[in-house]
Amino acid sequence: MIEKYSIRTDLALEQKERFEADNVEIPGVVLEENYDEEREIRVTTVRITTENGARTMGKPVGNYITLEAPKLAVPDEYYHREVSEEMECFLRQLLPAEKKDCSVLVAGLGNRQVTPDALGPYVADNLNITRHIVKEYGKYAMGKDRVDPLSAIVPGVMGQTGMETVEIIRGVVKETKPDVVIAVDALAARNSKRLNRTIQLSDTGINPGSGVGNHRNAITKETVGVPVIAIGVPTVVDAATIVSDAMESLIRAMETSDTLRGVGVVLQGYNAAEKYELVKELIAPHLNGMFVTPKDVDETVKRISYTISEALNHLFGS
Amino acid sequence: MIEKYSIRTDLALEQKERFEADNVEIPGVVLEENYDEEREIRVTTVRITTENGARTMGKPVGNYITLEAPKLAVPDEYYHREVSEEMECFLRQLLPAEKKDCSVLVAGLGNRQVTPDALGPYVADNLNITRHIVKEYGKYAMGKDRVDPLSAIVPGVMGQTGMETVEIIRGVVKETKPDVVIAVDALAARNSKRLNRTIQLSDTGINPGSGVGNHRNAITKETVGVPVIAIGVPTVVDAATIVSDAMESLIRAMETSDTLRGVGVVLQGYNAAEKYELVKELIAPHLNGMFVTPKDVDETVKRISYTISEALNHLFGS
Amino acid sequence: MIEKYSIRTDLALEQKERFEADNVEIPGVVLEENYDEEREIRVTTVRITTENGARTMGKPVGNYITLEAPKLAVPDEYYHREVSEEMECFLRQLLPAEKKDCSVLVAGLGNRQVTPDALGPYVADNLNITRHIVKEYGKYAMGKDRVDPLSAIVPGVMGQTGMETVEIIRGVVKETKPDVVIAVDALAARNSKRLNRTIQLSDTGINPGSGVGNHRNAITKETVGVPVIAIGVPTVVDAATIVSDAMESLIRAMETSDTLRGVGVVLQGYNAAEKYELVKELIAPHLNGMFVTPKDVDETVKRISYTISEALNHLFGS
Amino acid sequence: MIEKYSIRTDLALEQKERFEADNVEIPGVVLEENYDEEREIRVTTVRITTENGARTMGKPVGNYITLEAPKLAVPDEYYHREVSEEMECFLRQLLPAEKKDCSVLVAGLGNRQVTPDALGPYVADNLNITRHIVKEYGKYAMGKDRVDPLSAIVPGVMGQTGMETVEIIRGVVKETKPDVVIAVDALAARNSKRLNRTIQLSDTGINPGSGVGNHRNAITKETVGVPVIAIGVPTVVDAATIVSDAMESLIRAMETSDTLRGVGVVLQGYNAAEKYELVKELIAPHLNGMFVTPKDVDETVKRISYTISEALNHLFGS
Repeated sequence: MIEKYSIRTDLALEQKERFEADNVEIPGVVLEENYDEEREIRVTTVRITTENGARTMGKPVGNYITLEAPKLAVPDEYYHREVSEEMECFLRQLLPAEKKDCSVLVAGLGNRQVTPDALGPYVADNLNITRHIVKEYGKYAMGKDRVDPLSAIVPGVMGQTGMETVEIIRGVVKETKPDVVIAVDALAARNSKRLNRTIQLSDTGINPGSGVGNHRNAITKETVGVPVIAIGVPTVVDAATIVSDAMESLIRAMETSDTLRGVGVVLQGYNAAEKYELVKELIAPHLNGMFVTPKDVDETVKRISYTISEALNHLFGS
Repeated sequence: MIEKYSIRTDLALEQKERFEADNVEIPGVVLEENYDEEREIRVTTVRITTENGARTMGKPVGNYITLEAPKLAVPDEYYHREVSEEMECFLRQLLPAEKKDCSVLVAGLGNRQVTPDALGPYVADNLNITRHIVKEYGKYAMGKDRVDPLSAIVPGVMGQTGMETVEIIRGVVKETKPDVVIAVDALAARNSKRLNRTIQLSDTGINPGSGVGNHRNAITKETVGVPVIAIGVPTVVDAATIVSDAMESLIRAMETSDTLRGVGVVLQGYNAAEKYELVKELIAPHLNGMFVTPKDVDETVKRISYTISEALNHLFGS
Repeated sequence: MIEKYSIRTDLALEQKERFEADNVEIPGVVLEENYDEEREIRVTTVRITTENGARTMGKPVGNYITLEAPKLAVPDEYYHREVSEEMECFLRQLLPAEKKDCSVLVAGLGNRQVTPDALGPYVADNLNITRHIVKEYGKYAMGKDRVDPLSAIVPGVMGQTGMETVEIIRGVVKETKPDVVIAVDALAARNSKRLNRTIQLSDTGINPGSGVGNHRNAITKETVGVPVIAIGVPTVVDAATIVSDAMESLIRAMETSDTLRGVGVVLQGYNAAEKYELVKELIAPHLNGMFVTPKDVDETVKRISYTISEALNHLFGS
Repeated sequence: MIEKYSIRTDLALEQKERFEADNVEIPGVVLEENYDEEREIRVTTVRITTENGARTMGKPVGNYITLEAPKLAVPDEYYHREVSEEMECFLRQLLPAEKKDCSVLVAGLGNRQVTPDALGPYVADNLNITRHIVKEYGKYAMGKDRVDPLSAIVPGVMGQTGMETVEIIRGVVKETKPDVVIAVDALAARNSKRLNRTIQLSDTGINPGSGVGNHRNAITKETVGVPVIAIGVPTVVDAATIVSDAMESLIRAMETSDTLRGVGVVLQGYNAAEKYELVKELIAPHLNGMFVTPKDVDETVKRISYTISEALNHLFGS
């Protein structure tokens, strides 16, 4: 089907779903699902355990936890607090084996000037930064037994800085020696119904593009020197994806519909690749660089970034 | 065809094109085209001259001038100045018969918090406002023979104010008695290649929805009491439009393609309305409230709003 | 003393204090003080009851309630909620005699682009606007017995609009017919220790400058046609005020100090007006247009505006 | 005099003036002045040539070039271009001995959320960043003979990041190896008439506080490993400075005035330190953390930051 050739998603969950559609078991990929009916939060864990699984999935070996919370997109303070607590609990699982006084650098990735890409910077804006206080006055100044000094950087995007994001993060990590980096970024989903109501946590860092192999631009333990936890929220869908999905539905309908049986017969003569070619040229090239996003993206991104900041503040502030 | 039933465009030019596709002459609608090869600016004037024409076009009687300037979306100061001058010249044609000291109220419509909708507020931000100076010191204080006092209002959107925009404009017009209102607004196009490179000027005011008839929410001479010139720039395409267009292309390809002739034969058995139904259910309902916009919309909207402000500043400042 | 001649304050409380310094009783002005020790909120009510009192105070007849809450400037969510509730309770006293379904227009005055002046626009941003919903679906759609339709306008400042703020408000009031206007504005204090921790409520509207007499630019029942409640927070001190205050302290110290008795003797030969002249020329004219504001004004203004919005949302939303 | 003890200025020019007031020659400090009458730009160069001079001036050995351009604070596009060109020319003098293809990292220091401190981030926003293009496509892609790859970072302030600014810059410099860092920052002046119309260029980097000695937080060749050029614009005056200056004028007036001769006689009995003590306690402690800034600081900072960006874009883009 079309999407196996070209369609982009940053969610491991969606990558997995594509294979499920065809009832294919993927060796080296383990799936767990859990639905909290009362809280209306669905948690899906995708564990990629072998290099083979990684190749099939187009994502590196590691754990991907997805929280789907439909009401994330609406202003319900109490609900956001619940998601925040849930998230905190899963983040704790992904952190490197507990140690006393784990120092953390949060990297708020993305472009502050483009709303759907501003999630990372917004999260950084709302953090309770403590590293400088601990350094100046000692951890007892915080009046707590355990202290995880928190620092944050908003590196900007390459068009603004002229530098790869990983160069900036690596430089800052070498100077300030955090125990772990938490990279927060806006993602592209493939299904518009996931926008602004899904949070993906993973212990594999940030892997641009296909995401497998040792990309020089990845932000991972390999490239920055300390473990990298990634927090992502899908805020856009590529315009080409939306179109491609709709067209595939059309073709499928033609293949199965009673009234259109004639069409179906013709189309069944084509294999997936041919159908893809058929469709590809119909997708106008000017959809490149276009994205689909909800009309209220400004508000929802602010709200979710606040929910994520609260989870981080709570996790490292007590 | 699909779009005749449902697809939204705010551009008279695009409305006209839909009929041309079928080679239909529309009585009461006159078209003029002009291409300035050197400046790469295409100017299309659509004149709707009769109520019949208005009904067919779904837009009120009046003049619609569209400037298409592909390089508007890129940062080329010199080119923007040329477009600005061109625009100034056409605006002059739309203004009510020249009078001395014509006072002008610019209404910057739209939502300042949502970038693709912030065109109007941004234009208002860059104007050289003079009404208060002329009122305080007299027009000779401006050191000019002719003075057109300029004022501006950014009314906000109904979700922010609880009021119809026209209520605010009408109230302000009654109090401050401008000779003409210029309403600046972001538009929805139906073709994504027009985004951020097209400016529509018209003397019919702002007509929400289908736009014909005396809508109580329209911003027109009828509803605010003085002539209303509208300046619009398409900055988004409805997500449903993009999908619908692509699917129509697919169907058309099937009807005409050699290899798919069998499909074509089947589909030819359906009329436009049936094809529309076929497609409609395939367009996911969650596309409602989604729009398509270019990744660099923040920069381009700022640039074009500046170009429009300059045209207005020059037109009324000399 | 200097300040009687020239120094500006928008707080009735501070105006009153100037006379107290001299132990002067002002006929037609009644003062009540109340300190809630537990909550650390001091409430001072100044009632100007006669035209004579108004002339002496330089402020119109009416009630001025000042809440001083030192912790307003710091981020303490719980404390802000307490201030919000206190404020709601006093606002209720100032509202015109209770009626069912009182419709309210909030005017967020000031310049959104200049942080210390952005209080009004920020408050408007955070309101739960309901007028359009009540109008469209009826008050029962709100699922409540009593509904006070809330609308809001951010008129901008004269340099941006070319219009007096009162022209815009009056126009909007005539069109949309609210029962009461609540005008929110940033104020100038004379004592920097009051900045961002004081809220003044009054039933006299907004009175620019000396504030007495029927100013054409005032925003009052007389100029807009319905009662106007004013909510103000001092966010700046005029630079000239700071200097003037310090110099007066110096002179006073010289008059009373033992070691400087010689100076005191000389200065006692001058009356207040002469001392004022002496000082005036020392205040550099380039202090005009300069203001004093705390380094963290951006954060504190955002916080307080949220507190005020919450009071309004609660007052009119239940 | 008061200011010798306590008053803060970031301008070498103002530091120098304080000694001139007393007609003191400072060994190790050379002054050159140049006034371009036509352009109304005054250029003052202070060269600190010895460690002794550095100690007296409270600023490190190096060159400080100050451009004073009164019209910088007003919107005059042509004038801004002239200042931009002038600045470019002086920057060239401060750059390390010309080499081919000098790569430059601009650090936009300060807090983007606080307008008078946002100069650095604003300058970074307007730069034509080229490093990533040169790296990807080679310098010939730029169609120029000489290319100076430009990169930029907006590190934020310690309260936002938990890190010293120098830690971030040093990390980024080590990773990306620019030949020179240009640090842009908002300054505090001591004379309010210099605000937003003065640009200081120096080859000594950024030296917080008294600025002499090898501060661990300084951003200099010593701390980051490559030469650091500093560009600064005074945008605020400490509130305490304004008061202190006015009081000194008052004392001086008393010492010399005919009518106040008696006071003068008394005050002459005190030395500078005693007078300072006399005044100090009169300056309210709540002026700490307060600054004085012009009402239109938002606009002027935007304008000047654009002028500086243009100088940098032109210097490194051709």
